[in-house]
This record gives sequence, C-alpha cells and structure tokens, in this order.
Amino acid sequence: MSENRQRLERLWQAMDAHGVDLMFLPPQTDLEYLTGLRRRVPAYGNIGYTSNWVAGAFIAPGQQPLFVLPRMITEFDLPEGVDGEIVTVSETDDAVSLFTAAMDRVSPHPKKLAIGERAWADTVLQLRAHRPDTEVVSATPLINPLRRIKSAAELELMRQAAVLVDTVLGDISSTVVAGITELELASEIDYRMRKTGSIGASFDTGVWSMGPGVDRDATVRISNQPLKPGSGVSFDFGSVIDGYCSDFGRTIHIGDPNDEYERVYEMVMAAQAAGAAAVRPGATAADVHRATRAVIVEGGYGDWFRHRTGHCIGKDVHELPYISEEDNTVLEPGMAFTIEPSVFWPGRVGVRVEDIFVCTEGGVMRLNEYPTTLVAH
Amino acid sequence: MSENRQRLERLWQAMDAHGVDLMFLPPQTDLEYLTGLRRRVPAYGNIGYTSNWVAGAFIAPGQQPLFVLPRMITEFDLPEGVDGEIVTVSETDDAVSLFTAAMDRVSPHPKKLAIGERAWADTVLQLRAHRPDTEVVSATPLINPLRRIKSAAELELMRQAAVLVDTVLGDISSTVVAGITELELASEIDYRMRKTGSIGASFDTGVWSMGPGVDRDATVRISNQPLKPGSGVSFDFGSVIDGYCSDFGRTIHIGDPNDEYERVYEMVMAAQAAGAAAVRPGATAADVHRATRAVIVEGGYGDWFRHRTGHCIGKDVHELPYISEEDNTVLEPGMAFTIEPSVFWPGRVGVRVEDIFVCTEGGVMRLNEYPTTLVAH
Repeated sequence: MSENRQRLERLWQAMDAHGVDLMFLPPQTDLEYLTGLRRRVPAYGNIGYTSNWVAGAFIAPGQQPLFVLPRMITEFDLPEGVDGEIVTVSETDDAVSLFTAAMDRVSPHPKKLAIGERAWADTVLQLRAHRPDTEVVSATPLINPLRRIKSAAELELMRQAAVLVDTVLGDISSTVVAGITELELASEIDYRMRKTGSIGASFDTGVWSMGPGVDRDATVRISNQPLKPGSGVSFDFGSVIDGYCSDFGRTIHIGDPNDEYERVYEMVMAAQAAGAAAVRPGATAADVHRATRAVIVEGGYGDWFRHRTGHCIGKDVHELPYISEEDNTVLEPGMAFTIEPSVFWPGRVGVRVEDIFVCTEGGVMRLNEYPTTLVAH
Repeated sequence: MSENRQRLERLWQAMDAHGVDLMFLPPQTDLEYLTGLRRRVPAYGNIGYTSNWVAGAFIAPGQQPLFVLPRMITEFDLPEGVDGEIVTVSETDDAVSLFTAAMDRVSPHPKKLAIGERAWADTVLQLRAHRPDTEVVSATPLINPLRRIKSAAELELMRQAAVLVDTVLGDISSTVVAGITELELASEIDYRMRKTGSIGASFDTGVWSMGPGVDRDATVRISNQPLKPGSGVSFDFGSVIDGYCSDFGRTIHIGDPNDEYERVYEMVMAAQAAGAAAVRPGATAADVHRATRAVIVEGGYGDWFRHRTGHCIGKDVHELPYISEEDNTVLEPGMAFTIEPSVFWPGRVGVRVEDIFVCTEGGVMRLNEYPTTLVAH
C-alpha cells in the first residue's frame, strides 16, 4: 500500500472518531501530505486566478479525494499531475455551481465539516452559504496527530534536507569574512541549496550580524551592508527535499571574539545540549523548552532569549507541537523538532544555534551533522 | 494627510456604502495597503506561532485599526513598527478572550462583518463562534475598488520596479548562451534584483527553454539542465519596490532561430501591441484580452495561447480585474495591468512577452522600457 493511501486510511479513521463526515482541504501542506498534490512556491505578491477560492479537495471517509481546481492550476501548475478525479473550473464557468455540486457528490448533507486551518475565508463563506446548518470545525486536530509522527521514510528525507544545509554552510563558511554582504551570503546559500537538490529555501534565508557597535536586532533578517570585524554572523536557513523541510542555524564570528561572545557562545551550545538531554518519550514539549531556557537564565541572559526553544518540523517549517512554555504535548518517538536557543542583545552580542532532533525510543537523535564548536575568522 | 489616512477614509466610506460595520483583515496585502503593516516574506514550509489565527486588525468606520498580533510577530517581525494600537497575544495568554475583547471594543454587535478573502479559516470560525448572528462577507468588493486605481506615487514605485527588472535582464542577457543552466540564470536574476533594491522576487522566478527537440512545457518553470542551441528561453520574473510589484517577460533565442520561431515571435509581439492599442478608458478588460488573442488565433496558434492575457498588478502580482474573457470590468485611468501573450507548443516553439501597461486619460502608457525586438545569440 502506498504511503499516501496509508495516510488517507488513517485520516478516514480520525474523521470517524471525531464524527466528521466531510473535509475540505486547500492546495496546501495537509493536502500534499495526503494526496501528493504539490504546493506551489509561494509569492510575495499574491498570485490569483478567477474563482481561485474553489481550489482544494473534498474528502469523506472511505472515499478518494475529489479535487476542485481552477483551469489555470490544472493547465500550468501540475507538472506531476494528480492522483484522483479533478473538477476543473474554467474562467467562464459558474464556480459556485461546480463547487457545490462537487461537495454534494462527496457528501450531500454533512453534519460536521472539517476545513484546513489556512483555507481562504472566501472558501469558508461559500461552504457555509451552501450548507448553513453544517457544523464547521478546524481540520488541524485531525491531521496534525498523523503528521507529527514521522515515518522512517520521512525522517530519511528530513535527514537529507538537514545534511544539505550542513554542506552548504560548510562550503561557504570560509567566505564569511569582513567586507562581504549579508545579501551576498544569503544569495549564495539560496543558489547552492537549489543547485544541490532543494526546490528552494524552506523559508526566507536570514543572515544578520550583531555585536558591539552594530546597531542591529534580529528583526532585520538581512541587509545589504558589508560585514564588519567584531561581529557574530547568525545564519538561519533551510532546504526542501521532496516536500520535507530543514531549518538550521549557526553563528560565525568575524575577527577575534571578545570574552562575552565566547562565554555566550558556550552557554548557547550548552543550552541546546541541555534541551536535547531532556528529550525522551513521555517528556513534554515544555520540558524541553524549560531545560534549554534554564541554562540561559542561569547564565544571566534570560532577557535576551526572547523566543520559544523550537517547533516540530516536517512538510512545514513550523508544525505543532511547539517546543514552548505553553505546549504540554507529550513527546513520542518519531517527532522531529528544532532546538534553537539564542541570545540577541542588540549592540552587544548575538549568538544562535539550531538543529533538528528526533525523539526516539531510546531518547534522542540529531539529524544535522554540523559541529557546534566556535568558529572565528 | 498621509496616503494611508486617505485610503482608510475611503475604506470607511465604502464600509458605510455597503452597510459593513466591522472589518477584519489578516496581516496580508490589504492591511499593508491601508496601514503600512508590512507583509512577511512567505515561506514554502509554513511558519506558525501559538494562536497565530488572531493575527490581523479590526477596523470600524471612523476608527483607527486595532491590531491583534501574536507576541512572536510583535517581537521579531515588525522592524518598522506599526502605526496604531496593538493587542499582543503571548504564548500563554487566553487568545480567544483577547481576540474577542478586541473585537467587542471596536464593534460590540456588528450586523455585517467583512473579512479579507485570504484570512485563515480558523479565524473565520472564531469570529463566527463569538458572533454567530453577524453576517460575514468578503472584504474584496470593498477594498479592490480602492486598490485597483493607482495614484501617481504608486505608479512611480511600479515604474521603478519595472525598470529594475528591465535592467536586470539587460545586464544578464549576454550570458544567455548554450551551457548555462536555467537555475544559474534564475539565481543570478534573484540576486541582482535584491542587490538593486527589491525585497526579493515578487513571485518565483521562471526561466524555461522550449523548442524543437526540447521535451518541455511551461508547467516546469525552472530546471537544472544546461541550455541547448535551437531553443527559446522564456523569462518570467518580477521585483518589489516599497511593497509594489513588477512582472516581466521576454524570450531570448540561443543560436539561429528557425522560420517558425521568427514568425511566432513577431506574432506574439504584434498580439501584445494589439492589446495595448485596445486600452482606453471605457474599454473592458475582456476587450483587451480579445484584441490580443485575435492576433494569435488568426496566426493559427490559438490552441497554444493557453492562458488569460494578463491581470492587474500593484501590491499583489495578480489583482482584479483580470485581462480575461470573463472579466467585463470597465477600464479606468490609473489601472495597471500586464499584457502577456504567449505561444507554448511543447517540442516545437515557446515565446512569451510581458510588460505592465497603465490605462491613462489619453489611452495607454507602458511602464517597462525593455525593447521587444528579437534577440538571438
């Protein structure tokens, strides 16, 4: 049985368990996970087609997904095709009729409809207009429990995506010197990721320098300024292999680091190691966050570790559960997540590290292979 | 009065005219247009924060927008700040309470709520759960009529974005030769766009070659294969200047073109010129489409011009109205749109051209300056 088919059967079981008799998913990650329909690379300026709100698929327990797609998508955006029946909506078609007829074919009078959490508002309005008495709920509580446990095949793709970024940083590391710009480094990273097999960046590549005399916070992820000696250059980037993301971070210092940088660097690495040591089946996501954070708080830099410790990762960069104070999800073997402590103190010091770890039966496994030793040149 | 303030006042008038007493917009393009809150660069793998569905702003007629944002966004994603009050939702906060309290502050019992068309489904579900009797409609019919007429200041930014891509293609044109890969060309384009002032690509840069013996359709927008003599290399890319997009296309031939390529090339340029000649206040979007398409149909290649003629453009790449068969919107001075005919015949010939045109009182103005003469090397 194909992996997609296994996932679909598990979804049908989850739908039955939740009393959900119909699901609608837009052409985003959940649908790719279940059917292989590839996401498009997203655009900074929205791309849109006539009746674009129809796009997605209806799924009912025991039934194959029925896709509804604008003609422009079926014509130009599906080089790998789709495994299933498509209702194509042309520009001059009555989109509401085709969409509601497709819905009725899959489930004429659904009691409870689950919808992808990032489906368009316009789609929800159309669904409700057609079936105002149907209860509508979020699909995430049904799909995330499937997605968050990675199979061996998924973990192998994620390992490849992690090793790819390790290799890219290793290959450009010697060029991280005074005078080169953050933009040049990011462009080289993006180019090398694509050249070595990634569809592109899994998220917008960040390269930013912080240190004494650098008036800069981590809110500015990239600039066109040349790097200066005496600053730590933080990298935050990821690749995508066959739909699976990596997310990776290191900091490389330019010139001789001062005492504070060395101390903070060691502390941030120790924080990550403490977080990793807390990973085991039965621990919670918050436990890992607290173990990581404690090292930085005890080191006196708690105010400058300003974000959660990490997040699960897979087809999306940020997946639930989050490695964060409020998330009491119990870790299970097969969950993959980042541990990414940082200290960002504008005008003084900036250090971050990020790797992907997997919860295993025996504890923890790191997917990245890049060393965490202090590098300065 | 600032441009944002003028836009907001026009929105308030539109809300009154439509009987809409509350609007919710997610942190996407419409909200950027009205308030200056910058969109984030989108990610291939979703980025997400705890309670991320709250993100956006409530707007009522006569009132300043009230922003609701997850802490991670206020902390790390707003280097330019926000002009207005923010309700920040921390990871451990009760997001539903904060969100609904913000809604009630702006409009305690809205009769009709308009919501951004691409707001998250999860946000719609929360809004409806709190006010089940409120009618919910799409915000697009209120905001698009404002956005589609560009001011002189907007057109100047779009002209800069258009000239930027003209310059980039001019600078790399001599490198479009046999042996270089599409990926190398796209990477160089992306790098040069960012280096010369664009925040990044306005959409995923496409570079693809077609011709006799090239087994390839326009559905594959980029590959890692070296270019071969005897193929036409089509470019499709855009920049972003201060939030405004360009979208541009040319085809450059490698080696001596055959007779069909030359004939099709001239025909596609003539089609664009015919479309431009049809632009004037009072003509419809469909008129421009039909004038463009007629040239290619009469030339015998109608089956291979497989998409609409174009689309309006501004902060988004694809904005309404579309230059398409079904769109009978009457053109008005200040509308900016692409005219982008193509002939994509796999294994035989591929030619496209794309420029941005503006409807003016006197007829039409082209924003791009790049020539349309046939280039082969």
